[in-house]
Amino acid sequence: MFSNDNLCSLRWDPVGQAVEIIDQTLLPHTLRWCHLDSLAVFCHAISSMQVRGAPLIGITAAFGLARALTEDASTENLERASAALLATRPTAVNLRWALQLVAGAVYGLEPARRAEAALNKALALRGEDIANCARIGEHGLQLLRALQVDGTLNIMTHCNAGWLATIQWGTALAPVYKAFAAGTSVHVWVSETRPRNQGMNLTAWELQRAGVPCTIVADNSCGQLMREGRVDCVIVGSDRTAANGDVCNKVGTYLKALAARANDVPFYVAVPESTIDWSCVSGARIPIEERDEAEILTIAGLDAAGEVREVNLAAPGSRALNPAFDITPAELVSALVTEHGSFAASPDGLARLKLAK
Amino acid sequence: MFSNDNLCSLRWDPVGQAVEIIDQTLLPHTLRWCHLDSLAVFCHAISSMQVRGAPLIGITAAFGLARALTEDASTENLERASAALLATRPTAVNLRWALQLVAGAVYGLEPARRAEAALNKALALRGEDIANCARIGEHGLQLLRALQVDGTLNIMTHCNAGWLATIQWGTALAPVYKAFAAGTSVHVWVSETRPRNQGMNLTAWELQRAGVPCTIVADNSCGQLMREGRVDCVIVGSDRTAANGDVCNKVGTYLKALAARANDVPFYVAVPESTIDWSCVSGARIPIEERDEAEILTIAGLDAAGEVREVNLAAPGSRALNPAFDITPAELVSALVTEHGSFAASPDGLARLKLAK
Repeated sequence: MFSNDNLCSLRWDPVGQAVEIIDQTLLPHTLRWCHLDSLAVFCHAISSMQVRGAPLIGITAAFGLARALTEDASTENLERASAALLATRPTAVNLRWALQLVAGAVYGLEPARRAEAALNKALALRGEDIANCARIGEHGLQLLRALQVDGTLNIMTHCNAGWLATIQWGTALAPVYKAFAAGTSVHVWVSETRPRNQGMNLTAWELQRAGVPCTIVADNSCGQLMREGRVDCVIVGSDRTAANGDVCNKVGTYLKALAARANDVPFYVAVPESTIDWSCVSGARIPIEERDEAEILTIAGLDAAGEVREVNLAAPGSRALNPAFDITPAELVSALVTEHGSFAASPDGLARLKLAK
Repeated sequence: MFSNDNLCSLRWDPVGQAVEIIDQTLLPHTLRWCHLDSLAVFCHAISSMQVRGAPLIGITAAFGLARALTEDASTENLERASAALLATRPTAVNLRWALQLVAGAVYGLEPARRAEAALNKALALRGEDIANCARIGEHGLQLLRALQVDGTLNIMTHCNAGWLATIQWGTALAPVYKAFAAGTSVHVWVSETRPRNQGMNLTAWELQRAGVPCTIVADNSCGQLMREGRVDCVIVGSDRTAANGDVCNKVGTYLKALAARANDVPFYVAVPESTIDWSCVSGARIPIEERDEAEILTIAGLDAAGEVREVNLAAPGSRALNPAFDITPAELVSALVTEHGSFAASPDGLARLKLAK
């Protein structure tokens, strides 16, 4: 019997009054839970990417702000702590969103009651995230069931949009876990997701931990697998979705969407409502972050002695360009799967989503 | 002034009567020329992939057979040496082709004259390969000139189909070198080509050695670069082309072809006539080799001490699938560039190629 009780990226210890997170920088080689018990430690956890994934970042920051208020609940400290947390990942939309919700829950309260109110808000946000992801899972499960596959359902994903990126369930992987929990025979093609290899490092690890069969493949082979009829659908997450349904997600998503369309494979995008940017009219308006070329030119892994070691892959003097995201045009997206249901990736579909809330 | 005299993967030393090759397993970290002076050393050079690339493998084998005949020119030894060389890479088409040409050149001769005849045939094959690649370069250059790009011409390639895969010039890269030699401002997007990274390890290295500006990118980013208008054309090689124009090439080629079509970017395939399989009616008939999963799960690079070290990338117990090639359907190919000219990737186009020879 599948249980996801232990498939959780951040837990609250009510006895020790502390947050514990999985240090994701050590995955897949080491599972280590870290105790976060001061503002500085929270900030470091986010900035060093011990936690990553937009939902998880936001909720970690919420707990961090609550923690800061247990030490000094003054308005001055509230603002100082918010600013420190916000500076950890300047471009993360969920970070600002979560901090504003916690601040809103404590403004107007007398200082003595602020810490508890902030903690309660953080706990509530955590609970809402779990519930939203579970709903995405249920809505996605209906799409998977409609595929009517004989035998094992082969699902391809990209990057990591699982429970490691949220609190539980995940977004893109939530339907997979729901199907697995319902006894469906599922198998996941995990695209390694160069250059940071979140597919291999995080998605394969978390699926294995849940007992879901999966196989790692080079990003390059995803088209050929679809040509051979070995992929029943693709499900990915989204970092930001424009109001016309264009999807910004980890680089390489667009290539999978093209291959899916060419081979009549449904291409689903799991989109928590919080990642929809209603003010952005199309994907062309979304700036693509270019990250350090070192992410391409070097890589870390376990050496023969079991030590993590970084190695240089390229010749000295090589240059690389490292765009971190790409834009998948709405017309390649079969459906947007949200906590409110599944919708067409179009202005009409998104208008219906607004009504369905 | 560009010169490709030193851009050569295999040279003949007439004084030492020996072949020298670049040990490509050490690239991009170390350039080492190896002296091949016995049948066993030739066999090892091919089987261990010190030399790779269909044309280069064939010509190395031809010299290996010639070398074996200097020691024992009997028909029995000719057959034994041929069999040993053929067994080094059982699936390489050019290996059999080259060995048959050398054997054909010495059968019927008295043993005392066989070694010299075999060496002359090997030298002739080497010269023909250089000439064919140069012709591919000239025909491809005409296509590049027709693109009428303002400023720098941005060419994307995949895997390695340069002078390291042939003797000189290469196939896909020959037009690039010809354009560069003619003074055109060119820049190459080098797709790293997971899992074996021939783009990063070999193509970037050989372009840098030739002075051609290039930038390494993750395979995943190639679609986004085309969306942004940063790619003027794609040129790749081919391991095997079917009689209908379907192209089998390194895995990931198909995804680039899809992205090129979606973004109106010309997609050229450099195809020496020797890689056309006239007996194969379509790409669906070409079996796709599945290679060891270790190529995905581990990787080698230079550690901080400058030593080559292999590291494990994935969690223990991870499984991977590693198809080495994919099929790009003919309709996605803008032109096949051969030593006889450029042709449409279609039965008609290939019929015209047969007439043009």
